[in-house]
Amino acid sequence: MDGNIPLDLVRAELARRGLTGFVVPRADEHQGEYVAPSAQRLAWLTGFTGSAGLAVVLAARAAIFVDGRYTLQVRHEVDCHRFEPVHMVETPPARWLGEVLTAGDVLGFDPWLHTADQVDALAAACERAGARLERCAGNPIDAVWRDRPPPPAEPVVPHPLAHAGRSAAEKLADLAEALRAEKVDAVVLTDPASVAWLLNLRGTDVPHVPVALAFAVVDGDGGVALFLEPERLVPGALDGAVEVLPPSDFVRHLDRLAGKRVRVDSAMAPQAVLDRLAAAGARIDRGSDPTALPRACKNPVELAGARAAHRRDGAALARFLAWLDGRDGIDEMAAADRLEAFRAEGDLFRGLSFPTIAGSGPNGAIVHYRSSPASNRVPRPGELFLLDSGAQYLDGTTDVTRTIAVGEPGPEERHRFTLVLKGHIAIARAVFPAGTTGSQLDVLARRALWQAGLDYDHGTGHGVGSHLSVHEGPQRISKSGVAAVALKPGMVLSNEPGYYKPGAYGIRIENLVAVTEAPPPPGAERPLLGFETLTLAPIDRRLVEPSLLDPDERAWLDAYHARVRTEIGPLVDGETRAWLETATAPVG
Amino acid sequence: MDGNIPLDLVRAELARRGLTGFVVPRADEHQGEYVAPSAQRLAWLTGFTGSAGLAVVLAARAAIFVDGRYTLQVRHEVDCHRFEPVHMVETPPARWLGEVLTAGDVLGFDPWLHTADQVDALAAACERAGARLERCAGNPIDAVWRDRPPPPAEPVVPHPLAHAGRSAAEKLADLAEALRAEKVDAVVLTDPASVAWLLNLRGTDVPHVPVALAFAVVDGDGGVALFLEPERLVPGALDGAVEVLPPSDFVRHLDRLAGKRVRVDSAMAPQAVLDRLAAAGARIDRGSDPTALPRACKNPVELAGARAAHRRDGAALARFLAWLDGRDGIDEMAAADRLEAFRAEGDLFRGLSFPTIAGSGPNGAIVHYRSSPASNRVPRPGELFLLDSGAQYLDGTTDVTRTIAVGEPGPEERHRFTLVLKGHIAIARAVFPAGTTGSQLDVLARRALWQAGLDYDHGTGHGVGSHLSVHEGPQRISKSGVAAVALKPGMVLSNEPGYYKPGAYGIRIENLVAVTEAPPPPGAERPLLGFETLTLAPIDRRLVEPSLLDPDERAWLDAYHARVRTEIGPLVDGETRAWLETATAPVG
Repeated sequence: MDGNIPLDLVRAELARRGLTGFVVPRADEHQGEYVAPSAQRLAWLTGFTGSAGLAVVLAARAAIFVDGRYTLQVRHEVDCHRFEPVHMVETPPARWLGEVLTAGDVLGFDPWLHTADQVDALAAACERAGARLERCAGNPIDAVWRDRPPPPAEPVVPHPLAHAGRSAAEKLADLAEALRAEKVDAVVLTDPASVAWLLNLRGTDVPHVPVALAFAVVDGDGGVALFLEPERLVPGALDGAVEVLPPSDFVRHLDRLAGKRVRVDSAMAPQAVLDRLAAAGARIDRGSDPTALPRACKNPVELAGARAAHRRDGAALARFLAWLDGRDGIDEMAAADRLEAFRAEGDLFRGLSFPTIAGSGPNGAIVHYRSSPASNRVPRPGELFLLDSGAQYLDGTTDVTRTIAVGEPGPEERHRFTLVLKGHIAIARAVFPAGTTGSQLDVLARRALWQAGLDYDHGTGHGVGSHLSVHEGPQRISKSGVAAVALKPGMVLSNEPGYYKPGAYGIRIENLVAVTEAPPPPGAERPLLGFETLTLAPIDRRLVEPSLLDPDERAWLDAYHARVRTEIGPLVDGETRAWLETATAPVG
Repeated sequence: MDGNIPLDLVRAELARRGLTGFVVPRADEHQGEYVAPSAQRLAWLTGFTGSAGLAVVLAARAAIFVDGRYTLQVRHEVDCHRFEPVHMVETPPARWLGEVLTAGDVLGFDPWLHTADQVDALAAACERAGARLERCAGNPIDAVWRDRPPPPAEPVVPHPLAHAGRSAAEKLADLAEALRAEKVDAVVLTDPASVAWLLNLRGTDVPHVPVALAFAVVDGDGGVALFLEPERLVPGALDGAVEVLPPSDFVRHLDRLAGKRVRVDSAMAPQAVLDRLAAAGARIDRGSDPTALPRACKNPVELAGARAAHRRDGAALARFLAWLDGRDGIDEMAAADRLEAFRAEGDLFRGLSFPTIAGSGPNGAIVHYRSSPASNRVPRPGELFLLDSGAQYLDGTTDVTRTIAVGEPGPEERHRFTLVLKGHIAIARAVFPAGTTGSQLDVLARRALWQAGLDYDHGTGHGVGSHLSVHEGPQRISKSGVAAVALKPGMVLSNEPGYYKPGAYGIRIENLVAVTEAPPPPGAERPLLGFETLTLAPIDRRLVEPSLLDPDERAWLDAYHARVRTEIGPLVDGETRAWLETATAPVG
């Protein structure tokens, strides 16, 4: 046994602690999409670098659970003799544990890295097997992880009022009022995006999402304790009402909530927070993060910023598309780099909002594809090239997908592209009364595909932050009505139906939209909401079969393209502008 | 104080028991839509006869909670000096109690008449007020209700295999297998429709729903204990595998489930059942009623029965519509009686499936309208007449709404009728992949109305039983995605969008549909489901504005009418047939 292999080190540590096994999720304390190097325990232990996964280490066996996106990658990255790969949808970890554990086993977990719901599933699995689930004080991996990177220490900067639109003091006053109205004494914020939005702070602790990894506790008087190394804050980032305390004070601070009614978002908060509050004698109020809804409803300054950011982003994308058009031999990685370079020339650019997906031909059919040197390829004539990309600008976050014909597209590709476009237009044109959720609208994006016996296996739209995460709740457009919230003016969402033919091609047409009040038709009895499309970039007309569009759909497409031409044209060079004239000409 | 007034009798009984107050729901032990006379405690206490309501009796005040349907009726039926009427949606009983109760109060309730969720809400209200919630052993109303009617005692009859399609033994074997697969040792069935479906029994204990009010316990070996006075069963109604025990044995039987894992539908089961199981040491498995889904998916015999029943029902409705057309002076109640008489002439008729709604002019805008001598009126020329009716036949249950023009309809009525029709057709023509829920489809019924700034405040479709309740879960088509289940072949639902202009008129177009496999279009990748329309009756062409229909919609309407003519024509008299020719002619 080689004591230098992480798995062996962990097993030895578990044995020292009297544990039969241990669960290693990919998440950190904040349950975010990205984790800092210091929290990449799963990657250190297994080598797996995907965005979702979980390992279980037992004395005699170990498993790594990944979903369908990562079944190939896991075999490249992980020693599958040591870690048995398991499909986490077909065999959820709790079910696997229920079968593999035996009576008397003691399964450990780090209560900072699991939500209460996740712990419930583990506990049920242990109960079925007659095993015991045990909270670990101190993560066993941290105890044996030599050369563990230090935690993030970059500066935390203010998000200027000119982009935020509302001061932290105003947001805090509203939050305090909301807490009082719900008879809640305090809220524990564990989502770094909530903290960033509330206090108008931004950071660089993780890629793509401009936040600092921090907790905060806000009380009904608007008092805030922010848990962040005080020296990380640039001077003047906060006004005096916020008490800044080192992260190590967080748990002791929770003890001070004894007897108070404390709101915790049980879908996001670590079990350790619930445990500590319960031990302190706080009355836990499981509910939703009270900053989520006000954060989702962008204010007029944020919406103006989003429009400006989308014009610059559209100009960069138009330059790229014009550059790419007819140019041979550009592979996926080169295309992504070139697109990023065009974007980086724009004002207020702060990086990509997620890693670009550039999938040519069959790679386009892999929904969460990322080019690697091994998969990288040049699209061939007759193929489709799917590009899903976005950027962080100080005034807004973008996310846009265009599917491009390389050479002459086939009739099947045009047929299916046009069905996807019909769904995209149906969402863009939707009007609906207040109280309508995104899950109610989802079918509009799928109806044309369904009529042809086709569909796509992802949501139609996710919420998008304002210089925050490109994936933001609670708003969404999806089949599932679970926890669906009503769409409200100012919410920003993606509108991205697709179609994927495995081994052949992928199609997705994605614009961001903002929920707006729609003009009332004559005789209207109920106020209507609708969508304002924010994204400005040509939709490849060579892939549109006009005979499949009805007159209203053709009118929408032509009007959208006219708008792209008018708004983007003045921002680009002459060559791009000439290309744009053709790319945005009326169809049919 | 008059000791003969029910309220005073109840208050004296509460004082004897040391209770400060008592909650009187409308429900009986089975949480059904109708209650037997012996369980009409709310009506006895307050005079209120509506289908939903709840009273609270305190020492010094009392309140009756009703929803928007009954705000007028409650003032006619109830002495509002004694019972303060409260709108139960604006002020739910639990909130009212939280404000009215004071510390030290003891609020009683009958645990047989409330579900666990309802008890939780009452308990939270009491906790907020510092009061105590107390289960009553023996309902205090029963203790003082002189001349209380006896419980139902009518015969309970077999539902013939020729209509049920599957024997009780087959259904029991499937249920036992399902229980074993979920590692459940037994299930307590508290919904009389579940018992009726499982054992192929029918009764007449309540109006409109042909069930006997009974509990049953089924174990994983398929053993059944049915709690029903044995002498009520007609000979041969059951085969020998079912143990029939008097209802008084039910609670003692629950004690025998000690140590077993017992499924209880927590949305339906009385708190008393959960209490007793917990006290007995059973492991309670809160979940859904395992007979609900198989009951909802009608077998081929049931579907054939539904088609046959709908032909007879359509013939009766066509005779009625032909009779009504151009006939002056027919008031709402006379119309409803005449329609019932035509239906009663049909084979296998067993009564109405719900009280007919016959709303002329402004009465049509009241969604749950029932004509009374005070409200009864003759529709005037230019008005609409909304008729929502249905019947119980031994081979199927029907529910159909037609909105009829009386004289020459106005352009607004035609416009809005056509928008409702567009929604109806969108549901009728919908195709969708397996896994789709009714809540996903709901928007299709509303889209045309929404585009005009209009909507309706009820669901689009409810499930319908097979010679069982006309309102059956779990399938439905509604805005809410809460607890939405996937639509499956054989499910029967209503398709009933509407539009209501208060004080003026109501429009609803309702057909029943069955979920069926849809033929795959060329190139289809996913199996599709769709709807087969079961209801066969003309849709009033005088109210259709053909220019608002697109070609596919016109084709649907003409094809539907051709089918009505072909299937119903041979079943009606010559005069009706001649009328039908015109009523089903293609639209302009």
